[in-house]
Amino acid sequence: MNESRIEKSWETLSRFILSEDFEAVEAFTDSLTNNEMVHTLFRLSPIEQQVLVKRLAPHKAAELIEEVPKSYAAEVIENLEPEEAASIVSKMSSDEQANILQNIHSSEAEDILSHMDEEEADIARSLIEYSPDVAGGLMMTEFLSYPKGFKVSQVIHDLTERSDDYALYNVQYIYVVHAKHKLMGVLRLRDVVLSNPDLLIGDLAKTPLFVKADSNLDELFEFFEEHQISACPVIDDKNYIIGVIRQSSVKSAIAEKADLDHQKSQGIVNGEELRSMSTLLRSKRRLSWLSVNIVLNIMAASVIALFQDTLTAVIALAVFLPIVSDMSGCSGNQSVAVSMRELTLGIARPSDVFRVWLKEISVGSINGLVLGSLLALAAWLWIGNPYLGLVVGLALALNTMIAVSIGGGVPLLLKKLEIDPAIASGPILTTITDMCGFFLVLGLATLMLPLLI
Amino acid sequence: MNESRIEKSWETLSRFILSEDFEAVEAFTDSLTNNEMVHTLFRLSPIEQQVLVKRLAPHKAAELIEEVPKSYAAEVIENLEPEEAASIVSKMSSDEQANILQNIHSSEAEDILSHMDEEEADIARSLIEYSPDVAGGLMMTEFLSYPKGFKVSQVIHDLTERSDDYALYNVQYIYVVHAKHKLMGVLRLRDVVLSNPDLLIGDLAKTPLFVKADSNLDELFEFFEEHQISACPVIDDKNYIIGVIRQSSVKSAIAEKADLDHQKSQGIVNGEELRSMSTLLRSKRRLSWLSVNIVLNIMAASVIALFQDTLTAVIALAVFLPIVSDMSGCSGNQSVAVSMRELTLGIARPSDVFRVWLKEISVGSINGLVLGSLLALAAWLWIGNPYLGLVVGLALALNTMIAVSIGGGVPLLLKKLEIDPAIASGPILTTITDMCGFFLVLGLATLMLPLLI
Repeated sequence: MNESRIEKSWETLSRFILSEDFEAVEAFTDSLTNNEMVHTLFRLSPIEQQVLVKRLAPHKAAELIEEVPKSYAAEVIENLEPEEAASIVSKMSSDEQANILQNIHSSEAEDILSHMDEEEADIARSLIEYSPDVAGGLMMTEFLSYPKGFKVSQVIHDLTERSDDYALYNVQYIYVVHAKHKLMGVLRLRDVVLSNPDLLIGDLAKTPLFVKADSNLDELFEFFEEHQISACPVIDDKNYIIGVIRQSSVKSAIAEKADLDHQKSQGIVNGEELRSMSTLLRSKRRLSWLSVNIVLNIMAASVIALFQDTLTAVIALAVFLPIVSDMSGCSGNQSVAVSMRELTLGIARPSDVFRVWLKEISVGSINGLVLGSLLALAAWLWIGNPYLGLVVGLALALNTMIAVSIGGGVPLLLKKLEIDPAIASGPILTTITDMCGFFLVLGLATLMLPLLI
Repeated sequence: MNESRIEKSWETLSRFILSEDFEAVEAFTDSLTNNEMVHTLFRLSPIEQQVLVKRLAPHKAAELIEEVPKSYAAEVIENLEPEEAASIVSKMSSDEQANILQNIHSSEAEDILSHMDEEEADIARSLIEYSPDVAGGLMMTEFLSYPKGFKVSQVIHDLTERSDDYALYNVQYIYVVHAKHKLMGVLRLRDVVLSNPDLLIGDLAKTPLFVKADSNLDELFEFFEEHQISACPVIDDKNYIIGVIRQSSVKSAIAEKADLDHQKSQGIVNGEELRSMSTLLRSKRRLSWLSVNIVLNIMAASVIALFQDTLTAVIALAVFLPIVSDMSGCSGNQSVAVSMRELTLGIARPSDVFRVWLKEISVGSINGLVLGSLLALAAWLWIGNPYLGLVVGLALALNTMIAVSIGGGVPLLLKKLEIDPAIASGPILTTITDMCGFFLVLGLATLMLPLLI
């Protein structure tokens, strides 16, 4: 997309909104593509956004809001009057509705639901009940099911008659049910249209694949890896079909999780941050992680205080303390990255800790020796004392081996303890490698003190 | 999946392979699901893997190999005899073929291609020519096109007659062409089957959406965001349809890129690492990044050497040097994570540096003050000198503001300079924040030295 075009569209729109020329707003937004609208939306102030969303036709506002990140969409919806919000939310498919309403305070969500069609609101309420990472929370309730006694011709007639109503539906599959929506079979749309119109669909239907409403993301991922289908019915305890889950919903839920994991590993732990959020909220969220970290950091650095005499005697060591701890941290983070990746791919499992350690320690020994020798040489040339080189080089070599062992193993152990490895691996790793690094440099120096002075 | 079942399946299979009981291997692999096969494959030694892949029916081996990560799949294929490899590769769809052959040395890829059906090999050769991140490199060449003069009934007849041949095809769309495959229109399968059998498809066809063969990932992503279709034709310079690109291929190419970015930011920079790779290769790749880092680290720490006198006079400062530099690094990394995320979402652009800086400095000022006060208090209580608390607290506050400014802005600037922000942002950030942190603590201490002793 053209950068200058967005720049211009944002400024133009902002001007129209400020001058309250709503006809121009409507005409102008009609001329933008969906994507341009999304990018324009981000540039507007919260007030301008609100005016814009109100002025769009509800179905257009719904399309726009479905495109932006979930947390952001929830914010925009929350800022509207419940009635306006309800008219927009009504235009979304049931899974999108649940997705957004789950991100809004429950009392405000109820305000919005109370302005919606009663039946639709009840469906949304039942979807919100499910956790967002199980089949029930990811499914959509729009699907096509017909009693097994229907003829092919009746189904085709219904499909063609009501094709407009079915615009939101996933029409690749048709589900065949016993009485009361008990799932009996499945038919691909193309099988239906290519069949003899007088046959009963109950006779044509194939045994259906299905998932339970409480299947979690891992199970759903494996299911869709195993079966190459684009969507699958979700059933309740009584085998009643209650929704359809799309492969694409599972994939995007997983991608979202991987992305959040990455954010978490970098210290954005309370959910997605966008710079359009308020400064205080962003500050508070970041601080909650930083304040834990500063305590860990002070703990680690207190090791240095134990060796003040050695440090005073050989002040050059102060230069090498951060080098040893930082470099070990880097090596350990590489191991964390590989372990996180292997956990995601399902190659490594919590029970593999020993195998992972063997693999890591072999790489860590080589890299520790190489990096330790480099640092030893640099220290010798710089400070002029070969023993000082020996102390810092040896410390780095040993600490690299410690770091890769911890980096490789900790994510697996945390997973076993059901603690989120994306958040906790980094701080645990750096606290331990800092402590060990300081201890090794200063401890070895204390042992060899006569040679260093 | 059941952990113990994988453990068992791997051991069982390994035993069958070692005892050369290939009938048992075949019977046993038939009993495993695809997913169990993939996980089992990772546990086997390279030799056992080779035996297993050779013993599977080619179409089953192809399915298995399509499931594992690309770089790993290429390794498995490379270890086979070209003739065996060719029989497996032939069973894959054209986009998967290109995907794997692009990851193999070109001479070995040619060996494999020379054992394949000539026409198929030529198609694969032409696909490999394209970069893997443009439409030409991601498309598949299996698609359904019919001349505009065909009747609906002829198309349906061809579809039903040859449905087995079309198993690999994406049959949601049918493309209508002029002579010589010049793209004229598109029809959804359901429109075809629900139409009057005597009509000409040329009269029914709608104006097609399409992409050019050299469209890059960003453009493809925007295209599919804009148009909710599952696949789209790819055309060459003469408007001839040369393939079809699936939305899912674009999404997984992007997910793969995001994942690689994450790996890179943690120091795995030369492509995906799996612990099944050789120790020396893993060591060499990790070292290439670490050895740059150690130089940067030594540079940063050399700032400490400039202030040896101050440090000797107030040895307690040595405890706070790593705390200030680490904590600023953490704050900076949070800003990097948000900028990388906003770059991916297309919310932030290189021209937004100033806007991003304003947003970052407002959060950074608050967090700097809070963290600085905490550290000042801790230092005062611990060391007993309020001025020492003032020095380290002020240094941390200022350095936090520097860190968020750099962390927020550097990814955007690197993007503008066309340097990969995922690799370079971290090292640049930590080198600068380390240097500034050391300089601020020791510089402020030197200024206030009489109050600290």
